[in-house]
Amino acid sequence: MAQSEIRALFSVASRPEVVSLAGGNPYTAALPMDELGEMFTRLLSQVGAEALGYCPGQGSVALREALCGVLELSGIRASADDLVLTTGAQQGLDLLARTFLDPGDIVLAEGPTYVGALGAFQAAQADVRHLPMDDDGLIPAGLEEGIAALAREGRQAKFLYTIPTYQNPAGVTLTEERREEILRIAERHGLLVIEDDPYSMINFEGAPPAPLRARAERGVIYLGTVSKIFAAGLRLGWVLAPPAVRDKLLLAIEASILCPSGLTQEATLRFLTEMEWRQQVKVFNTLYRERRDALLGALGDYMPEGMTWTRPGGGLFIWATLPEGLDSKAMLPRALQERVAYVPGTGFYADGNGRREMRLNFSTQTSETIREGVRRLAGVVAGDIDLRDTFAGGAA
Amino acid sequence: MAQSEIRALFSVASRPEVVSLAGGNPYTAALPMDELGEMFTRLLSQVGAEALGYCPGQGSVALREALCGVLELSGIRASADDLVLTTGAQQGLDLLARTFLDPGDIVLAEGPTYVGALGAFQAAQADVRHLPMDDDGLIPAGLEEGIAALAREGRQAKFLYTIPTYQNPAGVTLTEERREEILRIAERHGLLVIEDDPYSMINFEGAPPAPLRARAERGVIYLGTVSKIFAAGLRLGWVLAPPAVRDKLLLAIEASILCPSGLTQEATLRFLTEMEWRQQVKVFNTLYRERRDALLGALGDYMPEGMTWTRPGGGLFIWATLPEGLDSKAMLPRALQERVAYVPGTGFYADGNGRREMRLNFSTQTSETIREGVRRLAGVVAGDIDLRDTFAGGAA
Repeated sequence: MAQSEIRALFSVASRPEVVSLAGGNPYTAALPMDELGEMFTRLLSQVGAEALGYCPGQGSVALREALCGVLELSGIRASADDLVLTTGAQQGLDLLARTFLDPGDIVLAEGPTYVGALGAFQAAQADVRHLPMDDDGLIPAGLEEGIAALAREGRQAKFLYTIPTYQNPAGVTLTEERREEILRIAERHGLLVIEDDPYSMINFEGAPPAPLRARAERGVIYLGTVSKIFAAGLRLGWVLAPPAVRDKLLLAIEASILCPSGLTQEATLRFLTEMEWRQQVKVFNTLYRERRDALLGALGDYMPEGMTWTRPGGGLFIWATLPEGLDSKAMLPRALQERVAYVPGTGFYADGNGRREMRLNFSTQTSETIREGVRRLAGVVAGDIDLRDTFAGGAA
Repeated sequence: MAQSEIRALFSVASRPEVVSLAGGNPYTAALPMDELGEMFTRLLSQVGAEALGYCPGQGSVALREALCGVLELSGIRASADDLVLTTGAQQGLDLLARTFLDPGDIVLAEGPTYVGALGAFQAAQADVRHLPMDDDGLIPAGLEEGIAALAREGRQAKFLYTIPTYQNPAGVTLTEERREEILRIAERHGLLVIEDDPYSMINFEGAPPAPLRARAERGVIYLGTVSKIFAAGLRLGWVLAPPAVRDKLLLAIEASILCPSGLTQEATLRFLTEMEWRQQVKVFNTLYRERRDALLGALGDYMPEGMTWTRPGGGLFIWATLPEGLDSKAMLPRALQERVAYVPGTGFYADGNGRREMRLNFSTQTSETIREGVRRLAGVVAGDIDLRDTFAGGAA
């Protein structure tokens, strides 16, 4: 399983001498810990007994209402009743996989896509088929072709899984026009869309196009999380789904965890209602923009010819493609030896693709460290180019 | 699904005018909220950035080590490496169900048993076969007969699920002798045992017999939780399993939630290392013993002849059986009308049994309220006895 490889990688990458561009953590150190301490103290003295007990499987009504307010900021109209709170958006993916997928069922997803989604779909023994992206996100003609190819096999996908905004790992965003087009195609073919949207508030060049769910209430199940706007360690996400799906998710979540943590729910409610959370998001965004620029700048300054990368307008990741003939997984031990880490691209595909690709994170390290990491990585890439050329010469 | 019925019941039972003996919450109001507030403040200022980020799927090493110390108190020897932390013990059940059970597989379990375990096993489409209990817990001959009955069908159970100590909902405890006997039977038949042990520290008459896992390292998977010794709202439990199973659980937990909350893990670590947690457990136990006594006393004082109940030495629940001919589920609307609630017995069986039975909780209400609740309930039972006799007279 790809996740176990990533886990092994992270344990080496976390050594202090290694510059890790492999991470995925938001920069939680930017949170106001004193203020949060006071918030927890108030919370416990005011509603401690409830927050520390069991809560309803669907999650707190007050928090679901507050989250509807957050969703409204991106143009999504929803009622608290339509939300199911989950242990991070990951659990939303897992519950949807368990609800919708039987072994052998087909899921359409961007290639590359979020490794945790692959984990959830593969745990349900689904067959993930990747669809092509470019700098403007998922390519509508590619979706059409994917659907048609399945039809030729007499098959139909259970759903399209997509991260339209600041995609993980690709860092690209589906354009306004394509959003409409993708939805038209999905509707025409009766294809359910699962929209995973963890990053849209983490933006550096203004707000992204509105989510798919803001454009189509029916036919889109929407996943959100507080992992990037507040803290991943709270493990709090949500699924916004039509009532029939919501009821199934509710039964599934009760069987799987009874209910998400009441304490982290109450903390999130207070973050959203008592704290200057939009200001906090701005703090994250300012920080991440600077670091993204540092990563882009260093890539431009140091990387040898033939290397390409995406230029994300938000999120936490850049997706880089090595020069032809190089292999990011084979190169990783040499990179670690040079004290720099990244995530090889293969983990983001279900089909063994991604050998030339890698994911680079810019949220966890300072700009200076990022620059130093890229400098080291560029040396490794240059070395691998030499190896390739020597080998090609020897073979010739 | 039984859980949805219980949910509906809880929503009526939570009205202020209703005395609810239907709950299952520990009495979290007995926790020292000010001290916890200070603990969270320290936690955030010292390790906030880590606690609020993603953590390893298996959970924090430091917490797993501290939990091994807790396990040692009941005679269980384990290494931190063998524990997988979960979103409450419920998730442990769910992950085990997903790991071990294919549709149609057979699980042996006490009858009645924990409703959440039934939920997890039924979500995996398993076939739960109940085994008889008496006041000394699971009856060894009943287990033998259950195994033999399956063998006659050419079948074999995937595992035995058991709550040997202060069983939920029955409130009974497997005796010392029977523990050894059950383990011998399981070993002889190569039957895996899943021991669910949320309550053993919640005891009123000295420590219970040591857990099965303290007697047999191989062949027993052990589930624990901080829900009863600390707080259910943290959603933190663990599975102690042999390495091969642990590795499967680890993959499953990563696919399902990535990792449990780092914040609630760190809070639990500090509860176990910085706070007087064993003193806190004594506070709970003193309180619950008084309330158990109040419930037992009121049952003795008010209940009409023909009603029987268990006398638990710990845990949160008493299991009561109505006089012959009465039906706890049919009676519930009348009980709610009289402003008292309980959980009807059928939810604790996979096979429709339990119509004469009910679960009564003594952890959430004061002794006075419990007494008043039983007084009301006794009136309802007496009324149903009259109905039964009238009907019997009419039919005769």
